[in-house]
Amino acid sequence: MEGYKSFLFFLVCSLLLGFVAVIFSLVWVLHYREGLGWDGGAAEFNWHPVLITTGFIFIQGIAIIVYRLPWTWKCSKLLMKCIHAGLHLTALVLAIVALVAVFDFHNAKNIPNMYSLHSWVGLTVVILFSLQLVLGILVFLLPFASANLRAALMPIHAYSGLLIFGTVIATALMGITEKLIFALKDPAYSKLPPEAIFVNTLGVLIFVFGALVIWMTTQPAWKRPPEQNLKTLRPEGGTPEGTEDGSTDYSNTEKSDVELNSEAARKRNLKLDDAGQRATM
Amino acid sequence: MEGYKSFLFFLVCSLLLGFVAVIFSLVWVLHYREGLGWDGGAAEFNWHPVLITTGFIFIQGIAIIVYRLPWTWKCSKLLMKCIHAGLHLTALVLAIVALVAVFDFHNAKNIPNMYSLHSWVGLTVVILFSLQLVLGILVFLLPFASANLRAALMPIHAYSGLLIFGTVIATALMGITEKLIFALKDPAYSKLPPEAIFVNTLGVLIFVFGALVIWMTTQPAWKRPPEQNLKTLRPEGGTPEGTEDGSTDYSNTEKSDVELNSEAARKRNLKLDDAGQRATM
Repeated sequence: MEGYKSFLFFLVCSLLLGFVAVIFSLVWVLHYREGLGWDGGAAEFNWHPVLITTGFIFIQGIAIIVYRLPWTWKCSKLLMKCIHAGLHLTALVLAIVALVAVFDFHNAKNIPNMYSLHSWVGLTVVILFSLQLVLGILVFLLPFASANLRAALMPIHAYSGLLIFGTVIATALMGITEKLIFALKDPAYSKLPPEAIFVNTLGVLIFVFGALVIWMTTQPAWKRPPEQNLKTLRPEGGTPEGTEDGSTDYSNTEKSDVELNSEAARKRNLKLDDAGQRATM
Repeated sequence: MEGYKSFLFFLVCSLLLGFVAVIFSLVWVLHYREGLGWDGGAAEFNWHPVLITTGFIFIQGIAIIVYRLPWTWKCSKLLMKCIHAGLHLTALVLAIVALVAVFDFHNAKNIPNMYSLHSWVGLTVVILFSLQLVLGILVFLLPFASANLRAALMPIHAYSGLLIFGTVIATALMGITEKLIFALKDPAYSKLPPEAIFVNTLGVLIFVFGALVIWMTTQPAWKRPPEQNLKTLRPEGGTPEGTEDGSTDYSNTEKSDVELNSEAARKRNLKLDDAGQRATM
């Protein structure tokens, strides 16, 4: 992999930041707030920031970069797709539980639902995320879609995935803003008590985690190389795995594993895959 | 241009959305709020959302996509760089005035500055935007930097430009959340009065505008083709203009304008430029 050390640096930093963000969300609700519970009270609401940070931000971020991990490039594309989809599904389940927690809390306390910009964008992004997941499974995981359809939809899938991820982060920052204004009364948010500094820092951690994930995902040199030994990988009656990169070059599909794993072959393949790179980010 | 009609559709939609967002910000402060003024009061604060929407969002968005407009591809890269930098400079000036307005208002009303996540991220992004502009002018506009330096920094310049733009939009959404919670008291934000619906809609317009601009900017087929007639365009002692695309292929630099403007040549050039595309988004 070109720039392997640089990739490792970004990977470690992003995983560390994401992990610390999850810890921060836990410390926030357990130390500064009312803890966790499922009683219609504040402790139930508190699942919302914890599950969003854990699932919709950290796990979604990992799901996005999972193809880029060079030590997975020997695994079949199908396996990696299952991991990619599985992590996204986990993120979705946690996000839905996070939504249930907040609706439940609002209903128990007679607080209106769906009035804030945070809720408008947040619910929209959960719906879009679900659609993205269902369409992704139908088109890219199951063996029904044609190579042309996959190639045509891949740039949209990649872009909308990153857009959804960025939107989740923007929504989290709005949520933090909202919660700190409502929750901090004495001293107020504007007095910048320790909780305000702590949770603002959580927002910054989430933001930088997102920026690193998007950087790693948009570096073409760190992209998983296209599949070569299609016969052993593609499901019966399925389409060549490599085509959803947008590439239409099949001349290179019979290379041996030995050559596939050599650095010279990697560089040659990268050039051949350039047409494919054009269609993705 | 490949997908010209599609590009035009996205361009018209994004410009329309951006323009409507500016109008919405004006209607917000003139119809729902205290109007505009420079007296340390609420009317001075109101310059903040208007100037951020106009300058830091709408004009910055236009500055980002200006290279993509196919009817500018006959203009010299130097001229386009001046327009790109000039629009960004305009955006920065308006953003700084918007910051002055809000600091002035806070100081006059004894409201603390820099406590919210909105302010932390917002001030950081203005500083990063200024750095990006200064570095962009030094490296890409002035004729001092080497071709290698330009090629090395271009992917970072492009990524950080889009990251800054996305961050500005996230910050604006946080700002809207903050302002609506503080300003709407009777009826409260949670009762969703007309102003709340109107300004939430402004947030959605800003978000969709940003998503369209980033989509247009990340489509390689809509990228300005590399400069070919370098001799007539590059400043004396300067570096080849095309190299900052990350391309190191100079074999194609002496093509005539006639061929450059033909569709066949465009497609061939796109292929030759693939190495460059890999280094950018």
